[in-house]
Amino acid sequence: MASKWSRRLDWAEGRVDMTHGSGGRAMAQLIDELFVAAFDNLLLAKKNDQALFEVPAGRMVLTTDAYVVSPIFFPGGDIGSLAVHGTINDVAMAGARPLYLSASFILEEGFPLDDLRRVVESMARASREAGVPVVTGDTKVVERGKGDGVFITTTGVGVVPPPVVAPSGDRARPGDVVMVSGTIGDHGVAILSSREGLAFETSIESDSAPLHRLVARMVEVVPDIHVLRDPTRGGLSATLNEIAQQSGVGMVIEERALPVRGQVTAACELLGLDPLHLANEGKLVAITDRRHAQKLLDAMRADPLGAQAAIIGEVIDDENRFVQIETTFGGRRILDWLVGEALPRIC
Amino acid sequence: MASKWSRRLDWAEGRVDMTHGSGGRAMAQLIDELFVAAFDNLLLAKKNDQALFEVPAGRMVLTTDAYVVSPIFFPGGDIGSLAVHGTINDVAMAGARPLYLSASFILEEGFPLDDLRRVVESMARASREAGVPVVTGDTKVVERGKGDGVFITTTGVGVVPPPVVAPSGDRARPGDVVMVSGTIGDHGVAILSSREGLAFETSIESDSAPLHRLVARMVEVVPDIHVLRDPTRGGLSATLNEIAQQSGVGMVIEERALPVRGQVTAACELLGLDPLHLANEGKLVAITDRRHAQKLLDAMRADPLGAQAAIIGEVIDDENRFVQIETTFGGRRILDWLVGEALPRIC
Repeated sequence: MASKWSRRLDWAEGRVDMTHGSGGRAMAQLIDELFVAAFDNLLLAKKNDQALFEVPAGRMVLTTDAYVVSPIFFPGGDIGSLAVHGTINDVAMAGARPLYLSASFILEEGFPLDDLRRVVESMARASREAGVPVVTGDTKVVERGKGDGVFITTTGVGVVPPPVVAPSGDRARPGDVVMVSGTIGDHGVAILSSREGLAFETSIESDSAPLHRLVARMVEVVPDIHVLRDPTRGGLSATLNEIAQQSGVGMVIEERALPVRGQVTAACELLGLDPLHLANEGKLVAITDRRHAQKLLDAMRADPLGAQAAIIGEVIDDENRFVQIETTFGGRRILDWLVGEALPRIC
Repeated sequence: MASKWSRRLDWAEGRVDMTHGSGGRAMAQLIDELFVAAFDNLLLAKKNDQALFEVPAGRMVLTTDAYVVSPIFFPGGDIGSLAVHGTINDVAMAGARPLYLSASFILEEGFPLDDLRRVVESMARASREAGVPVVTGDTKVVERGKGDGVFITTTGVGVVPPPVVAPSGDRARPGDVVMVSGTIGDHGVAILSSREGLAFETSIESDSAPLHRLVARMVEVVPDIHVLRDPTRGGLSATLNEIAQQSGVGMVIEERALPVRGQVTAACELLGLDPLHLANEGKLVAITDRRHAQKLLDAMRADPLGAQAAIIGEVIDDENRFVQIETTFGGRRILDWLVGEALPRIC
């Protein structure tokens, strides 16, 4: 079919310019030929400034995240797939079934159109594989030197299916069991290894993945999981400390129980980092009543994304809200939040 | 109450640094002391990565927009109030009642904390006045020179009340009447006049305002408005051309019927711009069956934000989908989309 646009977009050599954000003809063409084509669904194709869909009565979840990861392409993914997975995961962590995504792009003048196309097509693929369409969006362009290639903000909506008691960070109770769905630190190491100037090589890929199907299995066997959270920025240590603060409890984690790949341990030793501070993008922490722990662990391990799930510790009574770690050498130390800026722009 | 944070945020002299985006303690403090305090609602205060709320069964609307306006403070508003109004308006243009907003911030290292606080407090005020709370959010920080102070992406959800037939850009029909809710070009002129190096003075303020209450009045008297859209980026000309494309129709607009302030006309003559290309942030275009036009106009004029509403033209049969303008001198010209980049970062 002949294009209705008089000028062709030059995918090979072209670059984003200010006209792509001006609200005029060039923007309309970019939306038509890239975004509407790649995301390919009827709601977006309507080209209204909003998407309209039917929902059942009940509990709805809304979540948003900006993605500024650098570099935008990394082993195991890119900013596009990450923006889809990350937001699906934040919806899923409420025990919810993700329904729809929105996507907003802030592009820097001069960004290669070919890179933009790779990012958008990766995003579309991730969205298709997860079964969660991108139904509305927005594009802005800022001058060269006022942005960094591409930033993406994705927002997700979902519904909590009726029998599920929504997990929440303030529901951890002393005696509860703390579990993680797999190896930690993979995403962080993958990003660090792809940054210029870091002198180490690894075959570690980002664990970026959508966790909604794993969560659906989990809430099916245990409809009342107390807490679910994905340990992204700040790693497992930040996530556990946040939950301890919200719930007013302490925790004891067993270092030897933590699933960590050998290459991640090695990279961390080299860089002076702790895998507990590294971001994950395809893992979750679950905190549940001890009675349900084995059942939940079995359900997690039955899913490809939870095959290496493990019980890593327990929730205790502690008015100081400390997260303690029982080291492999037998001692205990306080697992503090990351202080400082060791790992900027990890997601 | 004593802060639970050991270090105080220095609002007067402090600046955003990379630790505010790292997922650690500094980020948690900024979220606590600025975002949770300003937006002040129970859903956000839960500090989960998502907000959970009840919705009735029915038609839901999702919309998102990135705001990169420059400068961030301008006559009549700032990037914070604009981000609230703009997204509320995109929800309202589906005939929907806005329920909740999410907000994601991309901050540049070095951005003054005091400016951030002004923006967030303005956003909170706009949200409170509109009765649409910000219930979830995200903050990222990028290095100096990789952003521009602050970018905000807001996403809105809303519900279309049962008797309303959702307006949509593809529902304009030959014979329909085209209306606008008030003066055009105010936002564009306000932004341009506040840019450095533009040698003109004006007392024009941005028209930035939330239109959901005006829309509620309108759908109450005419539940089946064919099209509603807010003429933002690209101005009235882009909006009318988009609708003509979507609906497969033409339009004839009467130049003399367009409400334009004298100062806006004067500024446009000075700058060589057309008010029809200038962004508006508190105006809407309505297209309705001729039978309902007077009733709808009366309803619009009864609202403070529609006091200067006017009928500006009609929809015609035209396979070329041209938007024509009948000039005050009696001729007709094609009203084209803005070509080029005359007005970057207007919203």
